Amino acid sequence: MRVLITGAAGFLGSHLSDRLLAEGHEVVGMDNFITGNPQNLAHLAGHERYAFIRHDVSNFIFVPGKLDAVMHFASPASPNPNSPYGYVNLPIQTMKAGALGTHNTLGVAMAHGARFLLASTSEIYGDPLVHPQDESYWGHVDPNGERSVYDEAKRFAEALTLAYHRFHGLDTRVVRIFNTYGPRMHINDGRAVPNFIKQALEGTPLTIYGDGQQTRSFCYVDDLIEGIYRLLLSDEHRPVNIGNPVETTILEFAQTINAMIGNKKLIFEPEKRGAGDPQRRRPDIARAKEVLGWEPTISLEEGIRKTIPYFREKLTQA
Amino acid sequence: MRVLITGAAGFLGSHLSDRLLAEGHEVVGMDNFITGNPQNLAHLAGHERYAFIRHDVSNFIFVPGKLDAVMHFASPASPNPNSPYGYVNLPIQTMKAGALGTHNTLGVAMAHGARFLLASTSEIYGDPLVHPQDESYWGHVDPNGERSVYDEAKRFAEALTLAYHRFHGLDTRVVRIFNTYGPRMHINDGRAVPNFIKQALEGTPLTIYGDGQQTRSFCYVDDLIEGIYRLLLSDEHRPVNIGNPVETTILEFAQTINAMIGNKKLIFEPEKRGAGDPQRRRPDIARAKEVLGWEPTISLEEGIRKTIPYFREKLTQA
Repeated sequence: MRVLITGAAGFLGSHLSDRLLAEGHEVVGMDNFITGNPQNLAHLAGHERYAFIRHDVSNFIFVPGKLDAVMHFASPASPNPNSPYGYVNLPIQTMKAGALGTHNTLGVAMAHGARFLLASTSEIYGDPLVHPQDESYWGHVDPNGERSVYDEAKRFAEALTLAYHRFHGLDTRVVRIFNTYGPRMHINDGRAVPNFIKQALEGTPLTIYGDGQQTRSFCYVDDLIEGIYRLLLSDEHRPVNIGNPVETTILEFAQTINAMIGNKKLIFEPEKRGAGDPQRRRPDIARAKEVLGWEPTISLEEGIRKTIPYFREKLTQA
Repeated sequence: MRVLITGAAGFLGSHLSDRLLAEGHEVVGMDNFITGNPQNLAHLAGHERYAFIRHDVSNFIFVPGKLDAVMHFASPASPNPNSPYGYVNLPIQTMKAGALGTHNTLGVAMAHGARFLLASTSEIYGDPLVHPQDESYWGHVDPNGERSVYDEAKRFAEALTLAYHRFHGLDTRVVRIFNTYGPRMHINDGRAVPNFIKQALEGTPLTIYGDGQQTRSFCYVDDLIEGIYRLLLSDEHRPVNIGNPVETTILEFAQTINAMIGNKKLIFEPEKRGAGDPQRRRPDIARAKEVLGWEPTISLEEGIRKTIPYFREKLTQA
């Protein structure tokens, strides 16, 4: 297959490119580098089955040659309001990537007769009132909150993708991606696992907000990419949750990471929860198990072990 | 003021144009006539303060001369799945009007330093779990259902409008419009009031699905336009519900309309409710009362009396 991947310089887009190349496919990467990192692509320079087009997906897209699949992964995705990469600080770009970008990438898929896969997100469930979330849950999203620039853009992107499937008969897939971690993620992503690894490597106390009993579910990137690859090859048009359903308390994350890095310090601060921040989110992956035969296989310890070297290198460079 | 109104040939856009002209303003109407009706504009031909541009808002918009306000009313809006004007049958156009159209009209407002008013909808509340709905309610919307093409497009449009307000400092307004009726609405709109008036004028039995005890809230168009005009002149950036909070049972609507037209027949059929169809929706208008001093003043009888001649003429023409 020859596959267009937008957001190809991002955390997930770059791993996805590697996986498709390893399977023998051709990849056309696309990115505008607003949040994507050129270093994530450096190892692909000169690869005979890899091409790259620098382009903003919110503008009309033209790709020469045939395409068998279009995978739309371009979007700011970090929830960190203190990061220049956070979608809260890139509100218009985030909404354009979700709406105009999805419209343009669907257009490319139509023009090439290619299948289309949308990278959606657990954020479409918002601050959920049911746990765990299966794909039939409609979500609980503030349409006007600060996070709405991401949540509503992705909900719109899903609705548009399914409208193209129903109305134009386009061969579409929608993956709802839950929290993921691994090499190449932004060091200031703002989520608990990268924060803790960074603090532990710096030898500073790991900051726990509240009592640390709140839980998170984190999926190692290789598991996630396996699920997405299987979805691409499947015939499933309904949205599919891909994520790790194992809930771990923030305290356990901190202790695990500290133990592996040889840091011992924890610091507890009062909980600060922004309006609309989800208190808990855990995927129900019954559909992925049933239709893709997929579930995560990489333990938290193993995943963190594979992630530490990347963060260590980044901190050395900085 | 010189005001751009998109969807100017539509039911609400045309009444809004009339009101602004009556107040002494200049109006630039814009429509692509996908669902708008040129007859709704015919009386404005040659008006010295009226200009018209035939254009699809999902393409880049250029308006010569100054603009003081941009009011984005362009969108298919009928929920009737059996009408060629229903948004279910125009899914891609509906999503483009909501996302690309809002992006383009916000761009025009930015370029002209104009204030911006978005026509949003009670549909952003979906199939609500609380009654009545005030503006703080997050809604209950299926992101993948047939109606999502309208609901999610309008939620996206709101989020984008508020992002422009927060991030670019644009002077924005958002009105959430509830069920409205009056002259110039589509005769096949599919909602209860036009259906009943049409059936009564044709002398056929009024079809009631279920026992008729389900309720609806309908606002006469002049009341609605008054609320929107006050919102335009206000300083309120938060969304404001505009609609009639008086709940009437479907049976009462049918009996009222039959009595006024001199028809007596009713026919009861089993309730058929599509997935995601709202069972009940009623605006909480406390915010409109407080910040705009607005509430509806036209009774159902008076509104229906003003509406009947239009439907009678349409049926004669058909």
